[in-house]
Amino acid sequence: MQRVKLADVARAAGVHPGTASRALNPATRDQVSRATSKRVARAAERLGYVPNTFARGLRTARSYLVGMVVPDVTNPLFPPMVRGAEQVLSRAGYTLVLTDTDNDAGTERRQVEQLRARGTDGFIIATARWEDRLLDEVAEARVPTVLVNRNTSGGRLPYVGGDERAGIKLAVDHLVGLGHRRIAYLAGPQDTSTGRERAAAFRQAVAGHTLPTWRTQVRPCAAYTEAAGAAAAVRLLASAAEFTAVLAGNDLIALGALDAFSRAGIHCPDRVSVVGFNDLPMVDRLTPPLSTVRLPLHEMGTLAARILLDEIDAAGPTDGGGSAMQPAQPQRVAQSLLGVELAVRGTTAAPARS
Amino acid sequence: MQRVKLADVARAAGVHPGTASRALNPATRDQVSRATSKRVARAAERLGYVPNTFARGLRTARSYLVGMVVPDVTNPLFPPMVRGAEQVLSRAGYTLVLTDTDNDAGTERRQVEQLRARGTDGFIIATARWEDRLLDEVAEARVPTVLVNRNTSGGRLPYVGGDERAGIKLAVDHLVGLGHRRIAYLAGPQDTSTGRERAAAFRQAVAGHTLPTWRTQVRPCAAYTEAAGAAAAVRLLASAAEFTAVLAGNDLIALGALDAFSRAGIHCPDRVSVVGFNDLPMVDRLTPPLSTVRLPLHEMGTLAARILLDEIDAAGPTDGGGSAMQPAQPQRVAQSLLGVELAVRGTTAAPARS
Repeated sequence: MQRVKLADVARAAGVHPGTASRALNPATRDQVSRATSKRVARAAERLGYVPNTFARGLRTARSYLVGMVVPDVTNPLFPPMVRGAEQVLSRAGYTLVLTDTDNDAGTERRQVEQLRARGTDGFIIATARWEDRLLDEVAEARVPTVLVNRNTSGGRLPYVGGDERAGIKLAVDHLVGLGHRRIAYLAGPQDTSTGRERAAAFRQAVAGHTLPTWRTQVRPCAAYTEAAGAAAAVRLLASAAEFTAVLAGNDLIALGALDAFSRAGIHCPDRVSVVGFNDLPMVDRLTPPLSTVRLPLHEMGTLAARILLDEIDAAGPTDGGGSAMQPAQPQRVAQSLLGVELAVRGTTAAPARS
Repeated sequence: MQRVKLADVARAAGVHPGTASRALNPATRDQVSRATSKRVARAAERLGYVPNTFARGLRTARSYLVGMVVPDVTNPLFPPMVRGAEQVLSRAGYTLVLTDTDNDAGTERRQVEQLRARGTDGFIIATARWEDRLLDEVAEARVPTVLVNRNTSGGRLPYVGGDERAGIKLAVDHLVGLGHRRIAYLAGPQDTSTGRERAAAFRQAVAGHTLPTWRTQVRPCAAYTEAAGAAAAVRLLASAAEFTAVLAGNDLIALGALDAFSRAGIHCPDRVSVVGFNDLPMVDRLTPPLSTVRLPLHEMGTLAARILLDEIDAAGPTDGGGSAMQPAQPQRVAQSLLGVELAVRGTTAAPARS
């Protein structure tokens, strides 16, 4: 088939090819009048014109590709963020490239390098470790990048997350309000910002209520999984520490702990209260339904994408190999913490009278 | 920073630039010896070389991008397919571009056209409708494309799915084995292949067991959602048809039906047995845990990607605008149906004695 060219569309619409190009590119459409833009779009549709974005990438030195890096797309925490980011990016004329690292740092490095080699304009990264050499390098090279969900110790890249401290405080306040005093915390892995921030917030909330503390009150789990949560709960039971409530670093850890308690004949919520974090799909349908902190996952994705688009605009054209030519001004780095809510359900109740 | 060029790597490794290029490209690596490939890789790593895939795309007239189109990435059915496809594609040097249509045909058309405009080498599409004009056009234009999860009436594109008929037969056999005779079917939407195939399989299985039938035994739901399943179950109850078991077109319809039965005071599995389809995450943790048909979702994704890579190789180079230059031979179209299993859990039991 004969390919319809941009010049054909421009001729049909009675405008200069440059004007037609700007009208058809979502990123430059606001540089032409609405009437012209409409006329060009109608001509393009009538002629069956398919814009050659590949060539556009070369002309403007932009690929209009954005990479989103997640540790595991089958973890239900991530799809709502992906969906939010994709909606914002596609409206701005960008295509989201999703890549799944399988929680492996080597895979992640290879994938990010491959995407940079494609001239990817920027990254949304949900896999950050607290100490993260790859992200230090990305920050050093001034590749437009926004972190979502997890932050690094350096704080050199813009970050969008939930307000971890507020979430933990809501959960502890709720348990204290029910009458709990001895609360254990099954923390997430301490090489992630969420694992560290939530544990620090827990200690702060416990201190704020002048609750009893003990040496093994905060137990870090090896991973954000049901298996790691169950193992930590088994150790908690074996420690003979007294507790009437358990706060978990995330919902999967909470589900694992509930399994361990159930196997030990300790009924929830009569004998122990449990609170999760994230509000994964379906946890409201469990018996009892899980009390948990709800993160605005979709909004985290949309905000990360908006900040990234600003970063890409500020960075200017790339060289197609991915390294941005930026002015040497210090980067303004925004840390955005979105509001969270507590979903009070069936796994929390007043402690049993002893 | 000074960009390290392919020529620098070739010089350091003591090979011709063409050899270095072939060694660094996963798609052509097997054209050079393993020792050479290793030497080039080491030189590239030492020098910090980032291959310019963008330029490679122009030289070979391939973009090494594959588009995967899903109706809703937050539906837990799709992430395992995406993950499987991404693993196969990235090992072959391709990048997967995920796009989410939000179940909207107009959005889908725009996204597919945008991806074609980027020179996308092929598509994996999980959104097919039974009558699907966009996919007819894609088949007509010979864009390398594989359907996964849902097929079209035309059958002109390769398709990878679960063996729907076998799954429904397993579920009906199980219910009949427990002693059920009057089984209702809450079907998925009839504009999807899964909705149609599973309903046809149900009628066939019921006929095979010479079970009683009645006019409203098969009730199509408006969507694959809990709300649509609940609405269909309410109508089923209002119809005064006798039944002791319900088979659902998917897990979400089953969950909606369970809610409706529970609200009507009809306990599962004492008064009614329910079987789902898909085995979504968490349905094994519900009370009672859901009996359901398990699809090999990850394997569906990997197989779809493998077939697509074959299609792309067979199609030869594209013109960068996405339309493939293919020989005019009739397309061999594979329909791959993967094995399914029945997970027997707590929502199925022998019918109550009347």
